[in-house]
Parts: sequence; structure tokens; C-alpha cells
Amino acid sequence: MTRAELFAQIQEKQSFLCVGLDADPKKMPPHLKGDVLAFNKAIIDATRDLCVAYKPNTAFYEALGLDGMRVLKDTIAYIGEDHFVIADAKRGDIGNTSRYYASFAFNTLGANAITVAPYMGADSVEPFLEYEGKWTILLALTSNKGSQDFQHASQDGGVPLYAKVMTRATDWGSADQLMFVCGATKAEKFAELRALTPDHFFLVPGIGAQGGDLEGVCKNGMNDHCGLLVNSSRGILYAGQDEDFAAASRAAALSLQTQMAKALKNYLP
Amino acid sequence: MTRAELFAQIQEKQSFLCVGLDADPKKMPPHLKGDVLAFNKAIIDATRDLCVAYKPNTAFYEALGLDGMRVLKDTIAYIGEDHFVIADAKRGDIGNTSRYYASFAFNTLGANAITVAPYMGADSVEPFLEYEGKWTILLALTSNKGSQDFQHASQDGGVPLYAKVMTRATDWGSADQLMFVCGATKAEKFAELRALTPDHFFLVPGIGAQGGDLEGVCKNGMNDHCGLLVNSSRGILYAGQDEDFAAASRAAALSLQTQMAKALKNYLP
Repeated sequence: MTRAELFAQIQEKQSFLCVGLDADPKKMPPHLKGDVLAFNKAIIDATRDLCVAYKPNTAFYEALGLDGMRVLKDTIAYIGEDHFVIADAKRGDIGNTSRYYASFAFNTLGANAITVAPYMGADSVEPFLEYEGKWTILLALTSNKGSQDFQHASQDGGVPLYAKVMTRATDWGSADQLMFVCGATKAEKFAELRALTPDHFFLVPGIGAQGGDLEGVCKNGMNDHCGLLVNSSRGILYAGQDEDFAAASRAAALSLQTQMAKALKNYLP
Repeated sequence: MTRAELFAQIQEKQSFLCVGLDADPKKMPPHLKGDVLAFNKAIIDATRDLCVAYKPNTAFYEALGLDGMRVLKDTIAYIGEDHFVIADAKRGDIGNTSRYYASFAFNTLGANAITVAPYMGADSVEPFLEYEGKWTILLALTSNKGSQDFQHASQDGGVPLYAKVMTRATDWGSADQLMFVCGATKAEKFAELRALTPDHFFLVPGIGAQGGDLEGVCKNGMNDHCGLLVNSSRGILYAGQDEDFAAASRAAALSLQTQMAKALKNYLP
């Protein structure tokens, strides 16, 4: 999916919602008896017209055991071609090895994008960028408490690590193949992040369960292609626990989509 | 396996060799017709008495497709209890999610240790450290070219990122549960790394195919528990290409073990 196609989806649906498919059998409605694929299909059916992206986190599928990746592949196949699918895997290794991770995410699983950790530098990221028509989403500023430990620390010349990652990485990949993970716990931060990389999309976790401020993020972070994919996982997945759980999930997604439609009207340049 | 048990193995075998089980069907001897498990078993049988650790990199098993993790689990089961098994996965995510990665590596696969990326900070690493009797091996200074991009950059007070990672992480985990990945391309660097963390083991890639200097690493990096696991992958795995490939692998491992025995004699305090 190209950047123009993604933006067209956003305009058509008036939504830049990404649904995080982090299915945990222990949190799913009991009547599903831990059937993650059935759960995912119900969530996808209930939210398909309200979101432009799905983001399964690979850890949740590894947790299902040796057949977990089969569940993930079946989930991605069920989503189909009209949504942007992100394998949230946070991979990264020497070039020779990153190449295998890229092949698994893009060829075996069929994802459009994979999240990648920047610690090992350019040659750990480039093999992901070599896939034409696929996307790399690099961790920049995450929304967890531990982001304070290294990401905010000043680098040479007083530039914090996350800013150095973003600036450096724009030499590795264009806005048509590279996005950044930018956490949402402080919405005002998005003005600075957007100034660093005016054109790139940001994948924004931390809305919903983690308490981010959607309007503030949009006000500070939106660009002329929207430039934001805002993720919600738990707030949508576990909105209901009875046989009507998918309707509750749809309501949660609809609430976010409604706010997003308003934000697009107000903040899209 | 405890630190004392690992050191006992090192003394008994006069070796701190880790064999990297990065099996690539395209590089394996042709007569094996891509049977990775058969290849791994032959390599393990040929090197078992010469090494103390095996390190399969998960990317190579993902590359085998959806059943790759089954091959990895069977490989780890074949290794047995007497060796230290490292799942080289370079994982790391928010705490809730890292917990699943830890469970997969330790419970599902049965590894003794997993490599972890530090970018997301304390709460991304701690879930791995919570497993009693298991080990976390944190990326500090890697041996690839891209390590220059962020790891060497100065942090607050002129401290480079890798040093900050090592110093900070010693607050998270003791030398009985935490190791560091320290690349070997410049052996003199190990004096500095050892001063930062006197007691922790270092997992050292980059010997052999990547051209590291084994004696220099030992001279600068060894501590009173040896404190080094030196990895070789390609140099051992692909030493031969005919039906006698395992004998060639054994010869390559023996050559390293012989150097290690000498280094233990010369440099173990």
C-alpha cells in the first residue's frame, strides 16, 4: 500500500485508526474458550469500516505456542488487501539477519509493515527498507516509562536520542517507505516530532488504555497526508466480555473514529 | 544454569566457546537437502565437548516458515541440559508485551537466555529478569557497522550510549542473571567495557567470520569467572560442504577451543 493509497483510505473512512490485535486468551470473552482466530475475526468484522490499519503484536502470537504464527498469518489473510497491516515485532539485527526477519514479516506473514528497533543502526534497518512496496516503522519515542532511560538522554550537541534516530533515519528511508513510532503521553511533544520529520507518518500508541490525548496529538502532529496512524488495542479489544463483545468493540472504535473525523476536519491542512 | 555452573563448565572443557546455530539451508551441505534439524544435530554432536553454549538466532528459524520455531525447539531439546542455550532474538517491548516474549523463549523454547534490545528502557527489560534461573543478555556494544550510528554517540556528560546502557542495567540485574552483548572488532575496547561492569559475563560475537581478535578480547575482558562467551557461527557451521562437513566443523571449533584453553591459562586471574 502506497502513502497515497493510505491517505485515500483515511479520507474515505474519515479515520486514521489502527486496531491493535493483541489478543490475549485470558482477557477474551470466556465463551470463545481461547480461540484467538475466532476472536480476531469478530473484531475485524466489527471494525473493518472504521479503521485503516491493524497491528498485531507478534509477542501475543508467540505466546500461543509453536502454532501461534499460523494464527497470525491466518488473521492477516482474513484482514485482506484493503487495510494496512503492521507486524509489531520490534526486530533488528545485523544486516544479514535482519533480512530474514524482513522476509518473515513481508513474505511469510504478508504484512505491509514491520516495527523495527534502531539500536543497532543503519545496517540493521536497511534490509527492511529494501522491500519495494513495504514499510519500516522505526521506534523513535515510545510511550512507556522506560523511554526516559535512553531515548530522552542528550546526544552530541544536546540532541536527544529519539531526535537523532529520526533525523538520521530520514537519510535511510523516504516518507513513502518509513514511518516512526511516536508515543502519545505528551501531546505537545508532537510539534517537535513533526518539525523533525515533516512528511513521515507516525504510528502513535498510547491512546485509550494508556491515556493519550487524541486531539492534542492531531493538533500538533497532523500533516497534509494526515501523517498519523493512531493505535488502540485494549480499549477496543476488551470493551465487552459477553456474547455481544464485538458490538462493544465496534462502539469503542466508532467513538475514536468520530473524534478522528472531527480532527481531520479541524487540523488537516 | 547458574553463573557458578557455567564457570565450572568452562573450566572442565577449557572452553568458553558459543556455537551460533544460524543454519541457512542455502549454505548447508547440498546432500542434506535443506534439513536444518539434521544439520544442527550433526553440528551439535561434533562440537558438544568443545563448547559451553549454543546460540540459535531466531531470525534463521522464522526464515524457515511457520514451522521454523518447531525446528528451533527440537534443536534446543537435542542440545540438552548441559549447555547454556541462548535464544538470540533481540526482543524488547513494553512490559506487558515483553512478558510474552520471555515466556516464549524460556517456557516454550526452553532456552536458558535471551538477547534483548535496550532502546525501550527498564520496563522493557525487567520482565525477562523476573524469570528465576534464566538469563537476559542485553545489547550494549554490537560489532556491526551501524553500531556507530547511535551506540557510540555521547550521552549526558560525555558518556556514550553503550556505557550508559551497561551502567544503568547493572541496577536492573545482577551478574547472576544479566549479561551484555559486547562486539569484538576492537579488542582494546574490552578494558573499558570490563571496567564498567567487572562481574557480568559478555557475549562476544564477531570472532571468526567477522574477524575479531580472540587473544586481545581475553587479555582485556576476562574476569575471575572468565566472564566471556565467545561466539562463532559461520566459521564453524560452514567449514565443510561435503558429507564430512561435521568433521570440518569440529576442526574449526577445536582450533578455537585450543586458543581458549591457552587464554584461560594466561589471563584467568
